[in-house]
Amino acid sequence: MYLKHIVESQQFTLPILKELFDRADQMNKVLARGGTRDYDRKIMSTLFYQPSTRTRFSFESAMLRLGGNVLSTEQADAFSSEIKGEMLEDTIRIIGNYCDVIVLRHHEEGGAKRAAAVSSVPIINAGDGAGGQHPTQALLEMYTIYDECKTLNGLSVAFIGQLDDGRTVRSLAYLLSKFERVKLYFIAPDEMQIKPDILDHLEENGIAYQLSSSMEDIVNKVDVVYQTRISEERSAGTDIDPSIYYLDTNVLQKMKYNSIIMHPMPKSIEISSAVDSDPRAAYFRQSANGICVRMALLSMIFEKD
Amino acid sequence: MYLKHIVESQQFTLPILKELFDRADQMNKVLARGGTRDYDRKIMSTLFYQPSTRTRFSFESAMLRLGGNVLSTEQADAFSSEIKGEMLEDTIRIIGNYCDVIVLRHHEEGGAKRAAAVSSVPIINAGDGAGGQHPTQALLEMYTIYDECKTLNGLSVAFIGQLDDGRTVRSLAYLLSKFERVKLYFIAPDEMQIKPDILDHLEENGIAYQLSSSMEDIVNKVDVVYQTRISEERSAGTDIDPSIYYLDTNVLQKMKYNSIIMHPMPKSIEISSAVDSDPRAAYFRQSANGICVRMALLSMIFEKD
Amino acid sequence: MYLKHIVESQQFTLPILKELFDRADQMNKVLARGGTRDYDRKIMSTLFYQPSTRTRFSFESAMLRLGGNVLSTEQADAFSSEIKGEMLEDTIRIIGNYCDVIVLRHHEEGGAKRAAAVSSVPIINAGDGAGGQHPTQALLEMYTIYDECKTLNGLSVAFIGQLDDGRTVRSLAYLLSKFERVKLYFIAPDEMQIKPDILDHLEENGIAYQLSSSMEDIVNKVDVVYQTRISEERSAGTDIDPSIYYLDTNVLQKMKYNSIIMHPMPKSIEISSAVDSDPRAAYFRQSANGICVRMALLSMIFEKD
Repeated sequence: MYLKHIVESQQFTLPILKELFDRADQMNKVLARGGTRDYDRKIMSTLFYQPSTRTRFSFESAMLRLGGNVLSTEQADAFSSEIKGEMLEDTIRIIGNYCDVIVLRHHEEGGAKRAAAVSSVPIINAGDGAGGQHPTQALLEMYTIYDECKTLNGLSVAFIGQLDDGRTVRSLAYLLSKFERVKLYFIAPDEMQIKPDILDHLEENGIAYQLSSSMEDIVNKVDVVYQTRISEERSAGTDIDPSIYYLDTNVLQKMKYNSIIMHPMPKSIEISSAVDSDPRAAYFRQSANGICVRMALLSMIFEKD
Repeated sequence: MYLKHIVESQQFTLPILKELFDRADQMNKVLARGGTRDYDRKIMSTLFYQPSTRTRFSFESAMLRLGGNVLSTEQADAFSSEIKGEMLEDTIRIIGNYCDVIVLRHHEEGGAKRAAAVSSVPIINAGDGAGGQHPTQALLEMYTIYDECKTLNGLSVAFIGQLDDGRTVRSLAYLLSKFERVKLYFIAPDEMQIKPDILDHLEENGIAYQLSSSMEDIVNKVDVVYQTRISEERSAGTDIDPSIYYLDTNVLQKMKYNSIIMHPMPKSIEISSAVDSDPRAAYFRQSANGICVRMALLSMIFEKD
Repeated sequence: MYLKHIVESQQFTLPILKELFDRADQMNKVLARGGTRDYDRKIMSTLFYQPSTRTRFSFESAMLRLGGNVLSTEQADAFSSEIKGEMLEDTIRIIGNYCDVIVLRHHEEGGAKRAAAVSSVPIINAGDGAGGQHPTQALLEMYTIYDECKTLNGLSVAFIGQLDDGRTVRSLAYLLSKFERVKLYFIAPDEMQIKPDILDHLEENGIAYQLSSSMEDIVNKVDVVYQTRISEERSAGTDIDPSIYYLDTNVLQKMKYNSIIMHPMPKSIEISSAVDSDPRAAYFRQSANGICVRMALLSMIFEKD
């Protein structure tokens, strides 16, 4: 199955997800052998308009493990010393002559779509604006649930924290709605609850969900706790007490023995460092899964038939 | 034929240009096969004192397509956290120990010459100051004319815009003067006309030229229209109306059907985006030619006999 | 002999130094053949929280000459656009999933030790804070003395300049104390003399040393002159005359014909540029030795048995 651009989570149907996860499993075996040289003629550009070392390194490592090569910038705005604000479209047309795939991090929502519309080479969206998408992040998180829980059907997942503008939470909830007998919990201060568009989508797809402002009676029955950060800017000067959403060893004790904890990273005080050593803490494994999932995506892009 | 340093356009004689263009043609065939691994033991440093993602990526892509490796910085000024302003000469002596060729972008005119004077490895000038040189840019533009028009003799070329400080225009006019029956047109506001030193050089070489402040009666008879930007800083508060130099579909209609439009890029409003889809718009192909021309130059540098 | 983390000079025993220098000799032969592809499945991350182009390029060149691949950042602080100050420990845990070795430049003393404590892959300290360590620099300097003088026993070495906070001077004095019949001279303004902890260490190891505020009667009898810079910030407004510590052709004339001059680089006015062409000026060769020594260290790290 062949992919061209990877712009948004919505383009991933169940058959594509299945193939992706099968390939990611294969890529883990390739990684155990130290990678492959199969794509040593391929060049990937990481064109980042904002620095994000983790995301960039994850893509570049995946490309290097496939044997490929990388052109890299974290200051794509400095594309030229002469003109500020060259059209993104022109930049993409030019960079496309230098490489076989462009990984784009753009500061504007819709940037990846604009790029894909004119690009001669595949575009991978590595984040476009706060309200935009970061589909490969959602995919590696889906794969992590699949890899840890060995299924994606029948799972119950609790999202905790600042959910209204959580790009990863929104994308993951969207993708989870494709599976059967899923139940989602959204645990957040009322002011930061998940937005109605996601809930509408869940209802349309017959997905059960529940809203709550407390972890009570929820963390003890879910398979996945997806923790996110409540920003100080949002909580300061309000009645919100972020600490009641923190995940510490007390919360751990209530969780199911075979459940997992995820986090989009980087994490801060919302997860106590004492939690790190618990086998249920899956967030470092989640981050590691970025490599095999991105290798799988790149291999699907390079495979033209 | 062996090249050591590439410092200025003047060092390119007709025989070297001929070999360069033959090799660039070959490199296009190599690119169609996905590149070569012939130079997989070679390391190129891109030592940029100013960021320029396009130029840097173009060099790095050329090196990777040859199978080579890259050390890269866009902030060579941060060479050391301890001393600001280490001598360029010392930097070059040290970096020369780490690689096989240095691509240097420096902020001072003459920087590349100073570097070449002390370097143990070849230096390629990738731009040295506003008044300096950027010879590989001029070479890829010459190659584009050759590739598009299938000749370099007997051509008429119109340069439009802010010509007095146009580094690429000056270098290209210089190189074109090596060929036969060339006619050059310089279309610019009087205050921004091409400087007398270039005109003197053209007269010495018997090259016909004409100055004008209007495109009228010129764009309809030339083979190449080379458009450049008129900066707002220069035109604001003067009588100059930059818009009469803009290239839009009206101008296109007057141009010869087999002529081409070039631009050093990045472009802005001086070329209407409606022009992009016309087959005569050669500026994206011009930018793409950076790869094969730089591969050709690197292969001439690495070939010691 | 297998190395895991390279955190501080103190971990290098005589047998490890001997193996390192033997391997560095071998690596010079490998370099003469254009490098090797032996480690083409390995990835090194250069995770720099402060830019240092020379140190970064030296590590990356060593890795490329071994056939390996590189992930590179000089702005590791921009690890995420969301949180300032992610824990170094979390960053290391995540980056360790992307590569086989991390070269870390951190701004805090002890950063490398903290990283090594949690890392799943080897950490190489490429400088951690002004008061910290930069062990590979000390090792390449030791190797330079060994390579130039063909021994490390019985040598007399004069350190000149601002010695109290000279990280490289302190590390090198420490390493030299492991050898026999070494005599060290510390030539500095009284206010900038080497600190007592180093002198205590020398006494414990029975190493002869002498303090002086003048080069007189010393530079004429030593095998190695190790010059360092006296910073303007430290000397301005004091009685100190930095110029009496400058190394020029007058000083050269007094030096032994087979002695050498070293400098941690970048150098400034403390070494006259007329000295550069004297065969005793070893500082560019010293800098070049960074490649073979770092190749040797990487090969010891990758060799698990």
